[in-house]
Amino acid sequence: MADTLELHLVGIGTGNPEHLTLAAVRALDAADLILLPRKGEDKVELLDLRRDICTRLLNGHARIAEFDLPLRAADGDYLAAVADWHDAIAAEWRRQIDAHLPAGGGKVALLVWGDPSLYDSSLRIATRLGAVGGAPRVHVVPGITAVQALTAAHGIPLNDLAAPVVITTGRRLREGGWPAGADTVVVMLDSGGAFQAVDADGVGIWWGAYLGMPQQALVAGALGEVAGDILRERARLRQAHGWIMDVYLMRRGPGG
Amino acid sequence: MADTLELHLVGIGTGNPEHLTLAAVRALDAADLILLPRKGEDKVELLDLRRDICTRLLNGHARIAEFDLPLRAADGDYLAAVADWHDAIAAEWRRQIDAHLPAGGGKVALLVWGDPSLYDSSLRIATRLGAVGGAPRVHVVPGITAVQALTAAHGIPLNDLAAPVVITTGRRLREGGWPAGADTVVVMLDSGGAFQAVDADGVGIWWGAYLGMPQQALVAGALGEVAGDILRERARLRQAHGWIMDVYLMRRGPGG
Repeated sequence: MADTLELHLVGIGTGNPEHLTLAAVRALDAADLILLPRKGEDKVELLDLRRDICTRLLNGHARIAEFDLPLRAADGDYLAAVADWHDAIAAEWRRQIDAHLPAGGGKVALLVWGDPSLYDSSLRIATRLGAVGGAPRVHVVPGITAVQALTAAHGIPLNDLAAPVVITTGRRLREGGWPAGADTVVVMLDSGGAFQAVDADGVGIWWGAYLGMPQQALVAGALGEVAGDILRERARLRQAHGWIMDVYLMRRGPGG
Repeated sequence: MADTLELHLVGIGTGNPEHLTLAAVRALDAADLILLPRKGEDKVELLDLRRDICTRLLNGHARIAEFDLPLRAADGDYLAAVADWHDAIAAEWRRQIDAHLPAGGGKVALLVWGDPSLYDSSLRIATRLGAVGGAPRVHVVPGITAVQALTAAHGIPLNDLAAPVVITTGRRLREGGWPAGADTVVVMLDSGGAFQAVDADGVGIWWGAYLGMPQQALVAGALGEVAGDILRERARLRQAHGWIMDVYLMRRGPGG
């Protein structure tokens, strides 16, 4: 086994196993160890999906290390709580690596929802891994994001012709309203209904939940007409499945 | 053969055949006809790459129709010229479909660079196809974008923690400077050096060309220090290869 520790952050798309790229399949297939964090009961479907991907792709070479993801402090300063949480996750990754790859080297892979670059913490946690043992060589395998799964499911372009796009969070939209400088905005990490913070006049919305999964749900229309439908559908689905992940695109102007 | 005409817009990533998803492989493999536009001598490498993907994946079932892409008028109103151009391309798609699928139905696939949702015209052209014959059922298969190939190659996140991102064009950056409301901006479709339009103070840049391809080139650093390097490298590579496609991310602030 090589002395070098390689960490492969593998984007797996949004729940459709066919979102995996050939490069993702190869990276998982070549891993010595796959880290599979457990995120609590309500997201057990997502863990099952990752297990299923591993089972289909493994060559029998990789060990799978399941572990409970540390919890984030719910109170106090948000950014400080996130920093502590990332430290705790890095320490847990290191414990798993030490336990399963005692020689200290090898290829470790993590299955990252969507793409490791977009609203995901794996790259930041990987940087902290160096503080609790040797720094790994990090490789990123891009994956299909929820943004792409959304536009594909609705059959719409992300951008208007040669026009800019803003990708932001539900929290930002609630606090700041429609972002300056763009007529298209994609909202992620919304705990529900942040679109109520914008003036619905002339705005179209394309919403999707469980994108790429069998239970995929889509709603599209004029924001003023479908906002209530989306809120009701979101509450119903969340109740039915015990969890929800959704994303939406809003466009204003002549085409809105 | 079914009467229904299905049009599959298949994102193929940015030149690395391993960027293809399992869904993309399946869609191309299931096609009756693959449309392969020729875009002129300078981009023959890109055509070869698409041909190579088809050759590797074809089950012998699909026909491949190569045709010369109509040219866009270089003068006059930009948006009007683009609209005329899209009409001409839709008419050419229709001619190829009529010639190769005389029964009028079947699965037609197009290999779309990156992802069909991001700065790509295929969805708009598909809409126009209905005006020159029956409207097809359009299916989009998402693909890895140049944005994702860029962040993966540099091993960086797209967004700062819970922060927004603007995706825009070189033209917009030249005209409007740094976009309002975000400290991270991704610039696409830049004919070269639009980053010179922003104040370099405290700004970091991560640049990449031919992302995912064997000739991939990367430059990163403080904008004030590497701007000249990027301009020189871009000119040299464009000369050497006869064409270039590049993209970059700029971030300002404490982490810039």
